[in-house]
Amino acid sequence: GFPGNPGLKGARGDSALSYHSAFSVGLKELVPATNVPIRFNKFFYNDQHHYDDVSGKFRCVLPGVYFFTYHLTVYTKDAKVGLYKNDKAIMFTYDQYQESNVDQASGSVILRLEAEDEVWLQVYGDEGFGGVYADNTNDSTFSGFLLYPAIPTPAQRR
Amino acid sequence: GFPGNPGLKGARGDSALSYHSAFSVGLKELVPATNVPIRFNKFFYNDQHHYDDVSGKFRCVLPGVYFFTYHLTVYTKDAKVGLYKNDKAIMFTYDQYQESNVDQASGSVILRLEAEDEVWLQVYGDEGFGGVYADNTNDSTFSGFLLYPAIPTPAQRR
Amino acid sequence: GFPGNPGLKGARGDSALSYHSAFSVGLKELVPATNVPIRFNKFFYNDQHHYDDVSGKFRCVLPGVYFFTYHLTVYTKDAKVGLYKNDKAIMFTYDQYQESNVDQASGSVILRLEAEDEVWLQVYGDEGFGGVYADNTNDSTFSGFLLYPAIPTPAQRR
Ligand SMILES: [Ca+2]
Ligand SMILES: [Ca+2]
Ligand SMILES: [Ca+2]
Repeated sequence: GFPGNPGLKGARGDSALSYHSAFSVGLKELVPATNVPIRFNKFFYNDQHHYDDVSGKFRCVLPGVYFFTYHLTVYTKDAKVGLYKNDKAIMFTYDQYQESNVDQASGSVILRLEAEDEVWLQVYGDEGFGGVYADNTNDSTFSGFLLYPAIPTPAQRR
Repeated sequence: GFPGNPGLKGARGDSALSYHSAFSVGLKELVPATNVPIRFNKFFYNDQHHYDDVSGKFRCVLPGVYFFTYHLTVYTKDAKVGLYKNDKAIMFTYDQYQESNVDQASGSVILRLEAEDEVWLQVYGDEGFGGVYADNTNDSTFSGFLLYPAIPTPAQRR
Repeated sequence: GFPGNPGLKGARGDSALSYHSAFSVGLKELVPATNVPIRFNKFFYNDQHHYDDVSGKFRCVLPGVYFFTYHLTVYTKDAKVGLYKNDKAIMFTYDQYQESNVDQASGSVILRLEAEDEVWLQVYGDEGFGGVYADNTNDSTFSGFLLYPAIPTPAQRR
């Protein structure tokens, strides 16, 4: 007889493409309060709404490995900022300010997060360390994104 | 007659692995011009040629979510740089220079781009803000990469 | 004859999900030695153990395109650091220190690596450039991650 029809197309392969978590936020003015989460209120990207501007915290929805980075304009006084994970400071960035010498300070870190874990920045110490500045043409920012989702790998699923 | 031969094996599934867009470029000398795109002329990585050193602009080929970052050596005078998306400044980094105190300034941002969107850096303001410096052993750089391509997710395609 | 049997299900698409390589490390104190790799001894993330704290080097296991970034606290003296790839300095970051003006310096770069390639940071020059500082509440860090593994794309395999 004649050859049969071609078989069905194979199933689509798995893809990492549906695991998205990223945010990129900034400040509109000098951080007013110390020892509480910095509430970034300018949004460059937050499509998944995993950064919450009410609490000032990124809350992990997709477990996995994340990259975080921040860039601070240091003006009017020194700036000391801690990056917190669930109430524990993981990393510190300190830059001293001197008159007529606006500076820039930055930090970044990679962390493995579970669902519900929270990550944020806050001024570490009293008002003397609160020189995290921003205005219309000076930015201070905080960004993060999911690098590797913690889902079973193809090998693990076979 | 006999049954026909089995059909052909299905096509391999889609993969995120073929969506690549990244560049990492630097300067060879002080930025000479202000209020025009900084033309980075030293290449650390630009395999997809999405950064164009003639225009000084990254042009988006693959729509999606991108991460951009830059690091500037501040020397000889203050440095103020804007990150532009299609003729609009999205973000500003300012660092004042004082004699015998070379500084470093940096910024980063996550942006969703459509095909043809362009992103670049330029000195914001007059020559007094043009202190973006580089030489053989001092770098000023601009890098970016595609985080998440904007293609239909497996769930959406079913 | 009768139509043939349906074809076999297509192979599972390759997934980027199993290609993980990331590290994020810091310092506990001022870098003591110059012109040798900085040995970061504080670990924020190093699940794949691709960063080796004995040599101070990241060693590439998965060929591909990598992003590296570092953030340095500049204190007690100037800081000049080179990012090395296999004994060649690829990039330099220099920040001058002045009394009572702690600074922050940072850099980042995207590089394509082959298996066995090594990437690290080291103070460039003599002790006068060794101001890379850290203590309990001041961090200096080095992080990196695999952006795009260098495996055949679906198109190339057909
Ligand atoms: Ca400065
Ligand atoms: Ca300095
Ligand atoms: Ca300073």
